[in-house]
Amino acid sequence: MITGIEARDIRFPTSRHSHGSDAMNPDPDYSCAYATLHMRGGDPDGNGLTFTIGRGNDLCVSAIEGLGLHLIGRELDEFEEDLGLASRLLLNDSQYRWLGPEKGVVHLAAAALINAVWDALAKRAGKPLWKYVSDMPPERIVSAIDFRHISDYLPKAEALDRLTQQAGGRAERTAALIRDGYPAYTTSAGWIGYTDEEIVRRLRAAHAEGWRHFKIKVGGDLEGDLRRCKLFRDTLGPDVRLSVDANQVWDVDDAVQAIRAMAPYDIYWVEEPTSPDDILGHKAIAEQVSPVLLATGEHAHNRVMFKQFLQAGAIGFCQIDACRLAGVNEVLAVMMMADKAGVPVCPHAGGVGLCEYVQHLSMIDFVCISGTMTDRVIEHAAHLHQHFVNPIETRNGRYIAPSAPGYSVDLFPQSIADHEFPHGKVWAEEMAG
Amino acid sequence: MITGIEARDIRFPTSRHSHGSDAMNPDPDYSCAYATLHMRGGDPDGNGLTFTIGRGNDLCVSAIEGLGLHLIGRELDEFEEDLGLASRLLLNDSQYRWLGPEKGVVHLAAAALINAVWDALAKRAGKPLWKYVSDMPPERIVSAIDFRHISDYLPKAEALDRLTQQAGGRAERTAALIRDGYPAYTTSAGWIGYTDEEIVRRLRAAHAEGWRHFKIKVGGDLEGDLRRCKLFRDTLGPDVRLSVDANQVWDVDDAVQAIRAMAPYDIYWVEEPTSPDDILGHKAIAEQVSPVLLATGEHAHNRVMFKQFLQAGAIGFCQIDACRLAGVNEVLAVMMMADKAGVPVCPHAGGVGLCEYVQHLSMIDFVCISGTMTDRVIEHAAHLHQHFVNPIETRNGRYIAPSAPGYSVDLFPQSIADHEFPHGKVWAEEMAG
Repeated sequence: MITGIEARDIRFPTSRHSHGSDAMNPDPDYSCAYATLHMRGGDPDGNGLTFTIGRGNDLCVSAIEGLGLHLIGRELDEFEEDLGLASRLLLNDSQYRWLGPEKGVVHLAAAALINAVWDALAKRAGKPLWKYVSDMPPERIVSAIDFRHISDYLPKAEALDRLTQQAGGRAERTAALIRDGYPAYTTSAGWIGYTDEEIVRRLRAAHAEGWRHFKIKVGGDLEGDLRRCKLFRDTLGPDVRLSVDANQVWDVDDAVQAIRAMAPYDIYWVEEPTSPDDILGHKAIAEQVSPVLLATGEHAHNRVMFKQFLQAGAIGFCQIDACRLAGVNEVLAVMMMADKAGVPVCPHAGGVGLCEYVQHLSMIDFVCISGTMTDRVIEHAAHLHQHFVNPIETRNGRYIAPSAPGYSVDLFPQSIADHEFPHGKVWAEEMAG
Repeated sequence: MITGIEARDIRFPTSRHSHGSDAMNPDPDYSCAYATLHMRGGDPDGNGLTFTIGRGNDLCVSAIEGLGLHLIGRELDEFEEDLGLASRLLLNDSQYRWLGPEKGVVHLAAAALINAVWDALAKRAGKPLWKYVSDMPPERIVSAIDFRHISDYLPKAEALDRLTQQAGGRAERTAALIRDGYPAYTTSAGWIGYTDEEIVRRLRAAHAEGWRHFKIKVGGDLEGDLRRCKLFRDTLGPDVRLSVDANQVWDVDDAVQAIRAMAPYDIYWVEEPTSPDDILGHKAIAEQVSPVLLATGEHAHNRVMFKQFLQAGAIGFCQIDACRLAGVNEVLAVMMMADKAGVPVCPHAGGVGLCEYVQHLSMIDFVCISGTMTDRVIEHAAHLHQHFVNPIETRNGRYIAPSAPGYSVDLFPQSIADHEFPHGKVWAEEMAG
């Protein structure tokens, strides 16, 4: 039984070294509101987190504490029997819902809690989350999805048909996944606060490690963006993939102009070219810069937004986020819609804990839903993994399938203690200057 | 100079009597996070609020306290000289922005603070907010608007042209407004938790007071919805306007079916037929139920969402909210886009303080922007006005133009003290049962 919810305000002072910096976010302190479901009666505790970049992380902590009351007193068996229960309990509190609805702080907090429930379920089953889900019959996976407000695009019966159709190949794909891992790209070379020299050094090092798909930040002045694209091609040549990320800074017409100017550098995708709410704006940009494809999703706050990006044909890549969406349940809905649209799922993972989370999601997509890794990559950012009990493993530019039970975001107790804001050791030192 | 920000958690136990109840929100406790900017040096304090329906109001209070630090130490003159300053300071804190962006708790909190700055400015000028804005030259009004992410639909130069074109008639329209007031409709008769007898009694009473446009809540079972529509027409006949509000509960196909069934009752608008994020869904519904028109906006979280609803021709009425949008600045952007689209602005005001707020906005729309009251109405809900120092006044179904300086949301100190959550007298009694 869930007897208590603990929520911690964990922050890492990443802004010291411009890790994670981009055109919209010059000085992020990668942070998370870290939720633990304490259990009584022999079931394992569950951990979940929601990612933020510093100030306001405390709001997510408070929201976890408030929303979490809905879980207290529930048995883990109830969540096992009804995979949609946690999601319904947390998203349908009408008073909290008003503050979104299904977006912002409350949705982020719900994600941490919902993911903590999935973590406990997978741990109890002794399986990593991707395997826990991949071992479920199609009916059970569908039972986790809330089809409200998406049934016009993806009716429940159609989702079930698709999962059933793909179920036959699961064993073979699971074997391939364990053998080969899952393709990835790296963001760690191209943060906007890095100097050109730093970028070149990091690109070369990453290439030597086996990376063949890179992302760099753009959206500063256009001349600088083009210089960085040229720097990239001059350093690594034409045979590697380059994606760029503008982090929302352009208006529609600016985006079209900038993307056309960058196109000669052979851009794999352009990420967040404008407001993440602007479905019609993305569509207008996409039509004018074709065949360059757009990617978005790290700020697409729920399944209804993704539904429209996919309906409109506005994006070429679907960038789910493990905790911007309301946890595993809503991610499943979005991955199934992306599959229907034929749009590859390439998760967002620049942050803390996001790589650990999303590897499971891409693997579920491969084994259960899309059945393919073609054109699909998981983002990789090389920061802060040392704080996790079961950190990601990558080799030759691919994620190794995780094998530890759960959803992989358990933080070491010492990392929690040191980075708790504002009184942990790291912050006490930071504030002392 | 702003020397301090005070944020209070004020809640009214409206769920006791089903005031405000609808298909999505069965038991709202109308609440507000109430922000006061304390001034030194002779300038008046400014008050602003953001509206919620209970749980989670504390999150908005915390966000006001955190974001508010950006205003401390600033002179009111700075905000007078640069009408976009408060908005930029509060919406461009990139760490807080991550939690939206521009949506949810952080955006609601920013609204309270931005509106408090406008309140102080109008009070210092000795004018009600609508008059304070209506006395500005077009260049100054435009300077308050952030055109980022909307310039593809409404370029700044076009906004300036439109305001300039309308400036000539301002004096005449101001006189008409003061003489005749502004048309309104009432929601107070049709909350979903009321019995049929209660609805009939309230409809008759409101009609006797001069109301000729009513809204009732639907979105329960369709049979019940149709019974209530029939009850309405049986009670008041064909010569009054009936709008209905489904509060987001339908999926696209359900909405089409329900609206077609209600259409014979001559529905003026159908409000929130589905998810407030679903621009394409609204468009699909609108195309299938024409000539019935849709209305939405109380949960449309920023100018980018409204831009798309208008671009897509998805809504027939634009329901701005004074604090869901980031205060006066963002409302101005939306009202100008609605004007361009030829879509009437009919503000959302079911809540506490929202009637007090939005009367000013509709009046600015009339005097400065659209220049007309045709097809435009302000919502009226008859609750909680007794707590405001300068409550709305209505007569014969019209709002009287407010004359007191400011933005009209000053609460009486006693009301604050009694309703502060959780220790105010009213809540202490509520909890004692």
